[in-house]
Amino acid sequence: MAHAFKNCSNLMVTGASRGLGLQIIESLVTGGFSPGKIIATARNPDGAKELQMLAEEHQNIHIIKLDVTCQESIERAASEVEQLVQEEGLNCLINNAGINVVANLETVTADKMLENFHTNSVAPLMITKAMLPLLKRAAAKGTGMGIHRAAVINMTSLLGSVELYWGDRADTFKWYPYRTSKSALNMVTRCLAVDLEADGILCMALHPGWVRTDMGGPEAPLSPEESISCVLSVIGGLTEKDHGSFLHYTGEQLPW
Amino acid sequence: MAHAFKNCSNLMVTGASRGLGLQIIESLVTGGFSPGKIIATARNPDGAKELQMLAEEHQNIHIIKLDVTCQESIERAASEVEQLVQEEGLNCLINNAGINVVANLETVTADKMLENFHTNSVAPLMITKAMLPLLKRAAAKGTGMGIHRAAVINMTSLLGSVELYWGDRADTFKWYPYRTSKSALNMVTRCLAVDLEADGILCMALHPGWVRTDMGGPEAPLSPEESISCVLSVIGGLTEKDHGSFLHYTGEQLPW
Repeated sequence: MAHAFKNCSNLMVTGASRGLGLQIIESLVTGGFSPGKIIATARNPDGAKELQMLAEEHQNIHIIKLDVTCQESIERAASEVEQLVQEEGLNCLINNAGINVVANLETVTADKMLENFHTNSVAPLMITKAMLPLLKRAAAKGTGMGIHRAAVINMTSLLGSVELYWGDRADTFKWYPYRTSKSALNMVTRCLAVDLEADGILCMALHPGWVRTDMGGPEAPLSPEESISCVLSVIGGLTEKDHGSFLHYTGEQLPW
Repeated sequence: MAHAFKNCSNLMVTGASRGLGLQIIESLVTGGFSPGKIIATARNPDGAKELQMLAEEHQNIHIIKLDVTCQESIERAASEVEQLVQEEGLNCLINNAGINVVANLETVTADKMLENFHTNSVAPLMITKAMLPLLKRAAAKGTGMGIHRAAVINMTSLLGSVELYWGDRADTFKWYPYRTSKSALNMVTRCLAVDLEADGILCMALHPGWVRTDMGGPEAPLSPEESISCVLSVIGGLTEKDHGSFLHYTGEQLPW
């Protein structure tokens, strides 16, 4: 489905300085069918050396500074994105930036819960809201649903599935802030799907797998390349039937 | 199942100054089989006139001041509860306090999301954590699972079900902060169920229905008496099979 990205004029990825965000940018520009403009955001672009090197080699990468928990920063980024995409609008927003404030029952505090919730659940909502005029602009030009028109992809986690956290799966990753923030993000995704359907903007939640990034750690079974190869295949193939869904990187549907 | 409460020595309800919390206290003391001690918490006990009147009539009601979003207040309340329950411990904690910070896509802000999340999702976790020594003390004396031993009941909402927010059910209550906070509370409940199972403490999430309270408004189909009659019947009948579950006030299982 990588060829689907040739029909995606403008795409934006948050948290693109490292990990899965950086891999998305790299896989897109080296995949043969790159979107017209790729907007890569980072909290601290000056420190994002690998992203900067990629942008030097590929003129369709545009780096924008964005602190996802700061409303002023979100609004400033939205203006910059508008300057870049202009009348075409934004075809695909990948809310990828996220953190894991590791805490179990013993160590969890209200502040840890609030911090993870702000970055992982609230920020994707506020960013989507700020980009909405640009998503609507792109959606107004197309029919059907998918990244050829307009789509919001929230990078969530299987660890946010309340249903799956039971029995055999309940032995590990007893992380209150992270799990809760991803369950909350799943509801945010569903709320957005309900509200943006009339505009033809596809919204869905995607689990990228357990990946060997700074967050996933060295024991994870997937390399970033493997994960993002599957992730981009899923995103490229999204249609109406996937609107409001929660998908595994293999394309399989997950229970909430 | 109201008679089940005669085997529940000590029970605590948060947000007991009005609405469903107040109704729980009233239904318990007038129901014939009242718990030994009923601990009713309110943010502002001085303003809780109806609760005060009930406590004057029924000596097993103990009013405690508790601001659920303040850790210092939670810890002070935990000491007071310990003084009351002593070696018996706490058999049933009903995390009922909750707010609805009404906001749709247009009006939602990060602050509104964080405020609702703090009260509805984080507070039940921090209160349960603070009461854990007392819940464990009660659980150590019993076998099986239920309010005769130790149980944590989180009052959640069907509006927190991601699965159900689709199709015909997606026309109303487009409340981002409230829905998200209840989805998050459902995950908190599941996390607690996983972690407290070894101690024999039952944890579950309960939807009380749409009720004519200050929060539910005058159009709601259920009176507080009707809702709480069913809610107490469900709570009284909880056993091992309900551990980690999400139940409707009719006892029916709900999807996450």
